[in-house]
Amino acid sequence: MVIQTKVCIIGAGVSGLRAAHRLLTHPNTPFGASDVIILEAQDRIGGRIKTDTNLSKLGLTYDLGAAWFHDALTNSVLHSSIEDGSFDVRKDGYFNDKDISYYAREIVGKIDALGMKLERVVEDIEKFIEIHFLASLEVPDVSLSEIVSMYMQKYDHFLTDEQKNLCGRMTRFLELWYGISAQQISGKYAVMDHQGRNLYNKKGYAFVIEKLARQIESDILTNEQVKLITRDITGKPYRHMISTVSGTEIGADYLVVTVPQSILALEPDHDYGITWNPPLPSNIHNALKKIHFGALGKVIFEFDEIWWPASEDGFEVLADAENSPKSAEIEGLEIQPFTHPIYIVNYATIKPSAASLVILTQSPVTDYLEKNPTLTWRYMKPMLEKIATSAIHDPINTIVTDWTQNPFARGSYSALHVGDDPSDLIIQLSGEYENCGMGSGSTIRFAGEHTIADGAGCVHGAYNSGERAAEWILKDLSER
Amino acid sequence: MVIQTKVCIIGAGVSGLRAAHRLLTHPNTPFGASDVIILEAQDRIGGRIKTDTNLSKLGLTYDLGAAWFHDALTNSVLHSSIEDGSFDVRKDGYFNDKDISYYAREIVGKIDALGMKLERVVEDIEKFIEIHFLASLEVPDVSLSEIVSMYMQKYDHFLTDEQKNLCGRMTRFLELWYGISAQQISGKYAVMDHQGRNLYNKKGYAFVIEKLARQIESDILTNEQVKLITRDITGKPYRHMISTVSGTEIGADYLVVTVPQSILALEPDHDYGITWNPPLPSNIHNALKKIHFGALGKVIFEFDEIWWPASEDGFEVLADAENSPKSAEIEGLEIQPFTHPIYIVNYATIKPSAASLVILTQSPVTDYLEKNPTLTWRYMKPMLEKIATSAIHDPINTIVTDWTQNPFARGSYSALHVGDDPSDLIIQLSGEYENCGMGSGSTIRFAGEHTIADGAGCVHGAYNSGERAAEWILKDLSER
Repeated sequence: MVIQTKVCIIGAGVSGLRAAHRLLTHPNTPFGASDVIILEAQDRIGGRIKTDTNLSKLGLTYDLGAAWFHDALTNSVLHSSIEDGSFDVRKDGYFNDKDISYYAREIVGKIDALGMKLERVVEDIEKFIEIHFLASLEVPDVSLSEIVSMYMQKYDHFLTDEQKNLCGRMTRFLELWYGISAQQISGKYAVMDHQGRNLYNKKGYAFVIEKLARQIESDILTNEQVKLITRDITGKPYRHMISTVSGTEIGADYLVVTVPQSILALEPDHDYGITWNPPLPSNIHNALKKIHFGALGKVIFEFDEIWWPASEDGFEVLADAENSPKSAEIEGLEIQPFTHPIYIVNYATIKPSAASLVILTQSPVTDYLEKNPTLTWRYMKPMLEKIATSAIHDPINTIVTDWTQNPFARGSYSALHVGDDPSDLIIQLSGEYENCGMGSGSTIRFAGEHTIADGAGCVHGAYNSGERAAEWILKDLSER
Repeated sequence: MVIQTKVCIIGAGVSGLRAAHRLLTHPNTPFGASDVIILEAQDRIGGRIKTDTNLSKLGLTYDLGAAWFHDALTNSVLHSSIEDGSFDVRKDGYFNDKDISYYAREIVGKIDALGMKLERVVEDIEKFIEIHFLASLEVPDVSLSEIVSMYMQKYDHFLTDEQKNLCGRMTRFLELWYGISAQQISGKYAVMDHQGRNLYNKKGYAFVIEKLARQIESDILTNEQVKLITRDITGKPYRHMISTVSGTEIGADYLVVTVPQSILALEPDHDYGITWNPPLPSNIHNALKKIHFGALGKVIFEFDEIWWPASEDGFEVLADAENSPKSAEIEGLEIQPFTHPIYIVNYATIKPSAASLVILTQSPVTDYLEKNPTLTWRYMKPMLEKIATSAIHDPINTIVTDWTQNPFARGSYSALHVGDDPSDLIIQLSGEYENCGMGSGSTIRFAGEHTIADGAGCVHGAYNSGERAAEWILKDLSER
């Protein structure tokens, strides 16, 4: 039996929930709770927001997915949460943007980045990249690694030996933004423009999900993995039919597809892929080939006490230089420490006196550790020893994320490899351009972090994209 | 008797000299040395480049005017000087861009800007300003002071008490870029985008002037203040006639006017104004009313020994907060210390072990001290006491610039007050837009720091504008 509804939303992450929320709470909405159905493939809602309160042995809460309000000056989720009283910046937030401390294998103690003006050179490299690619649209894309080498060659006479040794390695902090390696990162799109500071969400991002879910009275069906979308049906009382692996069939006039880009990009015959009938238009299909998916992961270690500089917000342990002498390999590890940088969030500045470190990792390290979580300490220990101010302790607890192993996530969020072009996919999926995406007249919309330019890859981007889909549906309906 | 020539250039600053240099050294130039005459009102060439080697009691060289290569990634003067071997970055330059130390009257010792994340908030304010004015072209301009207050009100909940007290005061460092006060600075144009780092020119900028002058065999007539420009004459063998106070008359086909904006803006009957016959077109006249002229000045103190932190590149002593309790006034001073911030360049990091401080000042302080140089130590001492690590010494030598008192300079360089619009003047004077400036068909060009967008106010901007004028003349001639 086909369950009939007006709007079907695939995915109960922040974009899908916000779409439903906006549809139901808009002052002029014609929709009631039964007009909207949300399908969620997993046994939980939230998508790549996942706040954990069980795994800690120190009674701490961790966001295993999104954790910061980025672009704090313009972040709609932050601003609306402040407004409705659900988030108190002073109590629930922490701007952990103190200048971070840098460490390298060959240097004892903290690197004197200030004295050596290393960050001024890193800024200079970023400006060089901007100027290089702004020169013309024809400038070919190269990797972050390559464009940094170009800077180092061209401006060798501007640099001290220390700057030459360390600054290129420092630019690899971008790996911990994108979740991919500097050899993969598109140089053209490497440099970000932030709309304000990064506010760590101490409260846990689940509050946003819970708040939205609380205000949505529609059905949210979990464990409903969509397998087939039959679209633009004629002669039925509904326009699209959505069929799930468990056999549920939903007929709906409007469809909002918020599955991750990683799912959208799967072939229809893949176990977790979606069959479209008729198939997805080739413009969407092609655009999906010009963008990749990153693998930002997290490793959390809890300790009996703090053995690192307690008041620093963060630490970056640099990867070795390409030409640096290799130390003896650590047995049993396919990826050796110091081949990729790590970014360490000092949880002790987020939750006072918490003896906990949250370490960000990138592909391929994330994939490797998420597949082999028991190797995590062996991999991390030599790098963490660099930040120790007293003897390093073994952890009393280790938490490793599983985004790459989760078949419904398959990684973290969209990421641009060399030669990729984000605008294509966004043009196709945003629904803001005539004759793009599903074509004009279609009542299928897309939402999610991969469908929007402002806040791409972020919670607020996803949230805004859900709102955009809802607004479009309301407008379309009112015009019919 | 009218001296006839092909090109007359008014002003022997860097833009005028580069114009002549380009005209004479272009591979396809039809001009010989006698085809170009340069008129200079002062008894020296260089304009607002002035390298002094006589005033120091420590045998030091000081640039009283321009001192840095700004935008080091794209600076044409720097790059061409490296290429021709006249400037060796490692030997002759110094990137004095170590994070500066901040001091305030009410705080003992250096402010812990890092620990309080003050610079992150200052960056946030800059981003806020950018977002605020980018919202639409209709957003009304307000002063830097006002837009900072708007940020402080709107984002109060983002800020700690220390940040609220100090960060707005820190943004006043921009006064030492523009040479005007935060109440005057146009908020809309306050935030700068730099094309790279700032390289201090240890060699002294005179080398650029001398290099250009050496390669120009044309007459450079000093002490020739232009009083009258009779333009677009018919029936004579020359198109324009330039008459000076001393009675010299030059007839020329092409005219390049590089006098400072401050001179261009004077009424014709002013002692130092220029009469145009026919008058300057009203579009130029009007554009000159929508831009101001700053007064960046320098005070240099030499001491018997270093009594401040020797290895810091620079110090900013903040002005008091508007509502801070006032200390007893210092007698005999019309402007009290701590009402305006000062930026102190530690000359000891530029010339090792030099016991010398170079202090930048803004209007109205510059005007006041340049008029009353004997008051300088009385004014500066209370602020300099803040940076003392041992007892402060009295100077053994004081040098104060005289840009505001020099009738041929009248200040430093163009500056944008609230409501100003730089594009108007640049559109009128750049010669790059049809039917603007002197109109199409005119053979009068303008050059100087005030006539160009990239590098506005800088040596390389002036240099490029001179080159632009020369290129245009060569092209125009070849097309006739």
